[in-house]
Amino acid sequence: MSANGSRHQFDEATRLTFHDGIYTGNTSAAYANMVGPFGGVIGAQLLNAVLEHPKREGEPIAITINYAAPIKDGEFTIKATPVRTNRSTQHWVIDLSQDDNILATATAVTASRRETWSAPDLKPPSVPSPDQVPSLPNLPNAGLPDWVSNYDIRIIRGFPDILSDNPPENEDSETLQWIEDKPKRPLDALSLASMSDAFFPRVFIRQNKILPASTVSLTIYFHADESTFANYGAQPVLGHARALRFYNGYFDQTAEMWSQDGKLLASSTQVVYYRD
Amino acid sequence: MSANGSRHQFDEATRLTFHDGIYTGNTSAAYANMVGPFGGVIGAQLLNAVLEHPKREGEPIAITINYAAPIKDGEFTIKATPVRTNRSTQHWVIDLSQDDNILATATAVTASRRETWSAPDLKPPSVPSPDQVPSLPNLPNAGLPDWVSNYDIRIIRGFPDILSDNPPENEDSETLQWIEDKPKRPLDALSLASMSDAFFPRVFIRQNKILPASTVSLTIYFHADESTFANYGAQPVLGHARALRFYNGYFDQTAEMWSQDGKLLASSTQVVYYRD
Repeated sequence: MSANGSRHQFDEATRLTFHDGIYTGNTSAAYANMVGPFGGVIGAQLLNAVLEHPKREGEPIAITINYAAPIKDGEFTIKATPVRTNRSTQHWVIDLSQDDNILATATAVTASRRETWSAPDLKPPSVPSPDQVPSLPNLPNAGLPDWVSNYDIRIIRGFPDILSDNPPENEDSETLQWIEDKPKRPLDALSLASMSDAFFPRVFIRQNKILPASTVSLTIYFHADESTFANYGAQPVLGHARALRFYNGYFDQTAEMWSQDGKLLASSTQVVYYRD
Repeated sequence: MSANGSRHQFDEATRLTFHDGIYTGNTSAAYANMVGPFGGVIGAQLLNAVLEHPKREGEPIAITINYAAPIKDGEFTIKATPVRTNRSTQHWVIDLSQDDNILATATAVTASRRETWSAPDLKPPSVPSPDQVPSLPNLPNAGLPDWVSNYDIRIIRGFPDILSDNPPENEDSETLQWIEDKPKRPLDALSLASMSDAFFPRVFIRQNKILPASTVSLTIYFHADESTFANYGAQPVLGHARALRFYNGYFDQTAEMWSQDGKLLASSTQVVYYRD
């Protein structure tokens, strides 16, 4: 609940009702994308079906979301099934439907972590702190989708030049950006999942223009757990995304989400359809 | 078929029979892992159920495999369902069972590519050519699992020192290795998928010792298609793997598979359970 007692729009957007083993949710006008809903929020809704499930054990370790077909504005149903429960891990199969058509599928793994030897391997990127980077301005005529206005995004590197005519192609597609919910909201697994998809498509950055592009499959691994979130509050998160290769209609993106003190919170990868 | 008319052991290992909509396969003694079968071959078998399916359209773009529980030596069944077929993409849900228990789940996307603007983004690592790197020797007493002997692996960087007592921890977990089937076999989507999992677990490299570790979920994206494979033959592939973070029982690995002429053939990511 925010200071004035209303729910945050992200909580509204990811809310599900559970009845007879099936969840019902709704697309959110606040998080609309160019076509259909923002994939990050759809991913968070699919994850939420696992997290709210009465049989769920452990915390999220991995989720893969496949965006199979456009989701129409309005109500949808989600089925989440724990197909295997082990001593410390649980495997989930999930789908999202409208009118009995499957429009998204997902698999997820939850697990109870135990304390073990732990260490970072990848080093965090060196970046200016959030207060040194200007927020993405509100550009109502720039053609940005509605979901963007729910985030404070401060792009350090890698943003398509949407204000020039025919800007030159960029030499790579790397983006570094600070991101937080607007208004602020304490970070949790759902918002971290959504933020992991809150990068402009890499083809926009590399080609320096807006092109048709849509995520086909997205995988997120969580290194943040309840103890991480309990201490994190609403601090911004550093997102770092790069494409690997653009090849005949599909490119892949690898991304990391870092805490303000340089700990890896999540890693993700996605494959994206594009046209030219 | 090899020169003497016998099938390659990888083709034997990934062979499925299809009857009444259900595939039957077998674990392969040649590709046994420390416990159960090598995950790369299981992944290839799950992918093969899609590729051999009479309703399959297009080539593999993405597969996510979740290793839910140990697979016993012997027969198993695979069910592969095309849950959504679009104009150019097809979405698959797959599972593997023994005795009606689901032991692995997967999702896959196949697609018909069209020629578009294409470009590499990530640059290939600089490495010596395969003939300048010695092959991993046969070390029958080193505790390496059986699957390793089916590959010619030439490790440029990042191999656990299994011959010393208490070798010091490595500063990172990076591995660069040339890999090819032994005996040679022309590369295809199945063998590329399997090779994408043919790295020693990152915790072995970082800690410089053999520990209990098993992949929980593996995602592979393909940048190689039939035209790539048609020209590639049995050349070795360069694998490049790093861990991102080891945290309380789970670490993630990101990896790329490069052609000998520096083109990205596949990218992959996996999350792995480990103990200390």
